[in-house]
Amino acid sequence: MYAIGIDIGGMSLKGGIVSKQGEIIRKVTVKTVTGSRSRLMNSLFELTSDLLNNSPISRDQLKSVGVGVPGTVEPYEGHLIYSNNIKVSHVDIGAGISQRFAVGCAVENDANCAALGEMVFGCAKSMKNIVFITLGTGVGTGIVVNRKIHSGAGGAGGEGGHMVIKKGGLKCTCGRKGCWEAYASATALIRETTKAIKKYPDSLMSQIAKDEGKVSGRTAFRAAEKCDAQAINVVDQYIEDVACGITNLVNIFRPDAVIIGGGISNEGDFFINEIIKHVNRDSYGSTRNPATKIVRAELKNDAGILGAAALCLGN
Amino acid sequence: MYAIGIDIGGMSLKGGIVSKQGEIIRKVTVKTVTGSRSRLMNSLFELTSDLLNNSPISRDQLKSVGVGVPGTVEPYEGHLIYSNNIKVSHVDIGAGISQRFAVGCAVENDANCAALGEMVFGCAKSMKNIVFITLGTGVGTGIVVNRKIHSGAGGAGGEGGHMVIKKGGLKCTCGRKGCWEAYASATALIRETTKAIKKYPDSLMSQIAKDEGKVSGRTAFRAAEKCDAQAINVVDQYIEDVACGITNLVNIFRPDAVIIGGGISNEGDFFINEIIKHVNRDSYGSTRNPATKIVRAELKNDAGILGAAALCLGN
Repeated sequence: MYAIGIDIGGMSLKGGIVSKQGEIIRKVTVKTVTGSRSRLMNSLFELTSDLLNNSPISRDQLKSVGVGVPGTVEPYEGHLIYSNNIKVSHVDIGAGISQRFAVGCAVENDANCAALGEMVFGCAKSMKNIVFITLGTGVGTGIVVNRKIHSGAGGAGGEGGHMVIKKGGLKCTCGRKGCWEAYASATALIRETTKAIKKYPDSLMSQIAKDEGKVSGRTAFRAAEKCDAQAINVVDQYIEDVACGITNLVNIFRPDAVIIGGGISNEGDFFINEIIKHVNRDSYGSTRNPATKIVRAELKNDAGILGAAALCLGN
Repeated sequence: MYAIGIDIGGMSLKGGIVSKQGEIIRKVTVKTVTGSRSRLMNSLFELTSDLLNNSPISRDQLKSVGVGVPGTVEPYEGHLIYSNNIKVSHVDIGAGISQRFAVGCAVENDANCAALGEMVFGCAKSMKNIVFITLGTGVGTGIVVNRKIHSGAGGAGGEGGHMVIKKGGLKCTCGRKGCWEAYASATALIRETTKAIKKYPDSLMSQIAKDEGKVSGRTAFRAAEKCDAQAINVVDQYIEDVACGITNLVNIFRPDAVIIGGGISNEGDFFINEIIKHVNRDSYGSTRNPATKIVRAELKNDAGILGAAALCLGN
């Protein structure tokens, strides 16, 4: 049994034929066409058709097509409601692909796909309830309850990045003040690193940013590893803010695991271990209650394709 | 079909025989004995036995017994892990009742029971996903996903009161700083009212508190109705803080409804309408996404009995 997984990103459309065991037996990437419903559908058709026509497996081995989208989705309708990243609204992706290729098609938000991908193919195979968070340009959350994605009414759940942790704090892109995303995203870390470099031009962070040609989410972590005091401050504050939101989610849900993905998760063991320390200290009744595991996402580069295919191959 | 619902409160044990339609056909209340496992079990036995022996229905019409507990529960084991209110830990309530009366017994946290009660007998009959919050001595949350209580690992989920909304803010009983409970509980409202009375002794709040013999969760609301400026400040700030946490939960979950119970919910339409205004304004993508309903709990005095019985009569 196989499925096609398609990951619609802001830059590229990635598609793959994925086996029940999570092997990708063929992969195709094309450029994402933004801002137009019909051109988006055409590139999806092109990608799917390419995968099908040049496939090493026969058509009857192919179960269905799963599509992950960076936006709000009505999953039962296969309908993309709105995506800020690819600048389209109200696209009937599911019906379009189903009719064109006479195959089932499931559509979901990409953070939800990533969560399900970890459950079906990644680090959460034996778990029931997880919260997946991505620390990237923004902060996304995907919730899986009883091994099923919790999409929320109208597919609009899973916006945990827009949970206020510092009421009256920094203005967020969503309009509220003090959202977790305004402190825990890679964007926030870059902002704080840039501020610290301006204030302390002698900090090792300046040198690293100069060498790399830009300030990135890694700059402060690299300088902190070399014991730069200002970088340690930036990193400590960032970790505290990330952990604050994770502890909130643990108290609300007590999932089996919180799985951390996105660019910042590549900071590795030091980062994850510090988060675990904070969450174990601060979560409700932590001495009595079973600790929620805090782990790094296992699926890396192909997480988008695998997560979308998991919509069809899960459970 | 009938079930017995038992609500273990800090002061009294209430039990009732409840029909599938949510009628309570017999009700018994006894005093809660705190601090002892065996005495708690004995009073539960006494209550159950009284209900069974003097029951207007025959034994074979009785499906099972549901018990709601103010504490952490391992629901699959029917095991009360810990309750601060009744000062006991590790009580096998489910096994005890099952063996004594040869009947099934389900045990759950009381906020979770209240949530399920609204779904089975109250205002959420046609809904799939709800978040129930109680604004009382503390702030409790109960989550229902796909019409099933989400207990979380080890039954320790649903502690949304301990979500930080003002990082570094007021110290909470749980050890964190800035928890929602420290701002949105009746206790918090009483604290702020008391502060305002001290600072503005001429406020109408002083007079009302004097007349009633104490400051309560109603004091500021009563004075605000009469246009007392300081009371309006207290109430506005309280509503803003309650709404902040509710908006967080809406963004994370996007449930069909947030149902508000507990003492403060009796403030009625003015209170609920103000909350709705804030949440609709602040929730993520509120212009595009279907609004989560914000409603007052429908079940009142017997909510505890009905919620516990819903464990047996639901779905």
